Amino acid sequence: MSKIILTGDRPTGRLHVGHYVGSLKERVKLQNSGEYDEIYIMIADAQALTDNAEHPEKVRQNIMNVALDYLACGIDPEKCHIFIQSMVPELTELTFYYMNLVTVSRVQRNPTVKAEIQQRNFEASIPVGFFCYPISQAADITAFRATTVPVGEDQMPMIEQCKEIVHKFNSVYGETLTDPEIVLPSNKSCLRLPGIDGKAKMSKSLGNCIYLSDEEDVVKKKVMSMFTDPNHLRVEDPGQVEGNPVFIYLDAFCKDEYFEEFWPEYKNLDELKAHYQRGGLGDVKVKKFLNKVLQAELAPIRARRKEWEQKLPEVFAILKEGSKAAEAKAAETLQDVKAAMRINYFDDADFLN
Amino acid sequence: MSKIILTGDRPTGRLHVGHYVGSLKERVKLQNSGEYDEIYIMIADAQALTDNAEHPEKVRQNIMNVALDYLACGIDPEKCHIFIQSMVPELTELTFYYMNLVTVSRVQRNPTVKAEIQQRNFEASIPVGFFCYPISQAADITAFRATTVPVGEDQMPMIEQCKEIVHKFNSVYGETLTDPEIVLPSNKSCLRLPGIDGKAKMSKSLGNCIYLSDEEDVVKKKVMSMFTDPNHLRVEDPGQVEGNPVFIYLDAFCKDEYFEEFWPEYKNLDELKAHYQRGGLGDVKVKKFLNKVLQAELAPIRARRKEWEQKLPEVFAILKEGSKAAEAKAAETLQDVKAAMRINYFDDADFLN
Repeated sequence: MSKIILTGDRPTGRLHVGHYVGSLKERVKLQNSGEYDEIYIMIADAQALTDNAEHPEKVRQNIMNVALDYLACGIDPEKCHIFIQSMVPELTELTFYYMNLVTVSRVQRNPTVKAEIQQRNFEASIPVGFFCYPISQAADITAFRATTVPVGEDQMPMIEQCKEIVHKFNSVYGETLTDPEIVLPSNKSCLRLPGIDGKAKMSKSLGNCIYLSDEEDVVKKKVMSMFTDPNHLRVEDPGQVEGNPVFIYLDAFCKDEYFEEFWPEYKNLDELKAHYQRGGLGDVKVKKFLNKVLQAELAPIRARRKEWEQKLPEVFAILKEGSKAAEAKAAETLQDVKAAMRINYFDDADFLN
Repeated sequence: MSKIILTGDRPTGRLHVGHYVGSLKERVKLQNSGEYDEIYIMIADAQALTDNAEHPEKVRQNIMNVALDYLACGIDPEKCHIFIQSMVPELTELTFYYMNLVTVSRVQRNPTVKAEIQQRNFEASIPVGFFCYPISQAADITAFRATTVPVGEDQMPMIEQCKEIVHKFNSVYGETLTDPEIVLPSNKSCLRLPGIDGKAKMSKSLGNCIYLSDEEDVVKKKVMSMFTDPNHLRVEDPGQVEGNPVFIYLDAFCKDEYFEEFWPEYKNLDELKAHYQRGGLGDVKVKKFLNKVLQAELAPIRARRKEWEQKLPEVFAILKEGSKAAEAKAAETLQDVKAAMRINYFDDADFLN
């Protein structure tokens, strides 16, 4: 069986270092592993519209941003189909039929839906489209016959819901859909970066993100303003590294080489942490080091992004090609789905019998 | 502005005299009025699947039945596009985007949805697809830019929901969709025929329907077994005509000419009713008359149905042609919808600006 990946992002803003650490870096690794036959990366504009219906401009404007961020991170259009969700109408048709296989109360019990409803302050006024997005996501995954869905741990319930739909469909209409497997990022400590303010999640609206496209001075300013251990008042005080955003970022980005290059006083992160914990190491010094590390990591990404920004028509062509390939694949699956449901009347010689 | 009709039926069984009186007769009248520029008649298989997902065969088998019943009643494929819902995938795409404009709680308040959930014993386990069918219906209506939706009174809340979606869409994305008007059947007394057992609704599962395709002897047997006034025990007793199915059917089908032809003792239905009400008129006599009336009404329908049954490939071609025309119309509307939402990126010269 072919190994196929489906993954993607909602285009509601530029991508940030949280996306990079949580998924983009991993995606590039999977892309270059040579283990996958097909890779589909979806810019989920239709999903973004489910809770941004009144702000289509925001979604539209960020499609190009996300595409640029992908290319900047090293997603290779020769190896991956980067596509725009709404350009593959087959996905809405699959969603429509899968909606018959899931009960309203099942969606209501979905922990991710529950959490997101709370986070968006929807309560009684959830848009139906948003409510149904686990079903739409199952359509996205199955349309490409994805065997592998690399997502964060918080997305586990969505994959569970998708698997349920696959099993239900296959049991009612016969073996048709591919059962996907979730793949969590290999580096467990990197599952989720906190915001620079120490809040659990980076979010555009909280203004606590470091974007992949931020200029050098912006990154520096953000790093120097980062939340650290609030009890680490004087340099000589012992500091805490657990839950300290500066150290979480170092966990995610720091390599031993960076010590040699930027701070030869320490051999590795463990030594640095030990010093911080026993006291005598000020936050500013650590932040300056983190800034150097981040700049080293982000500089090539930023440079590649600027190159691609100079050739937007080429990016446009990549999206168009990717969407065409994605639609061809989804159309094949849809044909199988309709044949299994026997609603392919005009292609079915038996329809009159 | 063009006058356009959209109407249809779920293919979950053969059509019965209740459908005929409640909508088919009216449809043929509208078709022949010459007042409408386009008429789309939808065999709503996709909608039928929302609460028959596990029985796709039932839906599939009844598509041809419904098409035959349409043609038998005088729906003219030269004047109407008879089409199969699932063959117009644009409808699912419209549904998908409209779902963002309606809240879950709004659908929950829809009286038709409430009533149907109760009637189907769904309670906690409503399929999401069924729950969303008012939204899907709005997609059906607006896809064809229908100005006129001829439906029963019980469907009023669905049209209200459609109008809300139209207003919401037009206010968010700019004037795009056509606001439909409901048209109730002209003969108010004919809105809904009870079952032959006196139950309010004819339904296949209750076995209380007279089908348009029932043979002469079957119709007779059903009429003779009809529920009447349960207090009309002896011929000489006064009988009640209100709520008496035999008289409701006569209200719907009887013309004065039938008295001349079959029962010259009376001039018209009022005289017959008066006699029944004062006593001295037995149910059997009235039923025999009703049977003659029904046979006279149904015989030409039955004959036309048998003719069409001999040329199924032609019916198939009618459905295929109708679906093609319907898809072309829906695709136009969808293009307008996507342009209004500005999610037509690849057709939009401004996308890179």
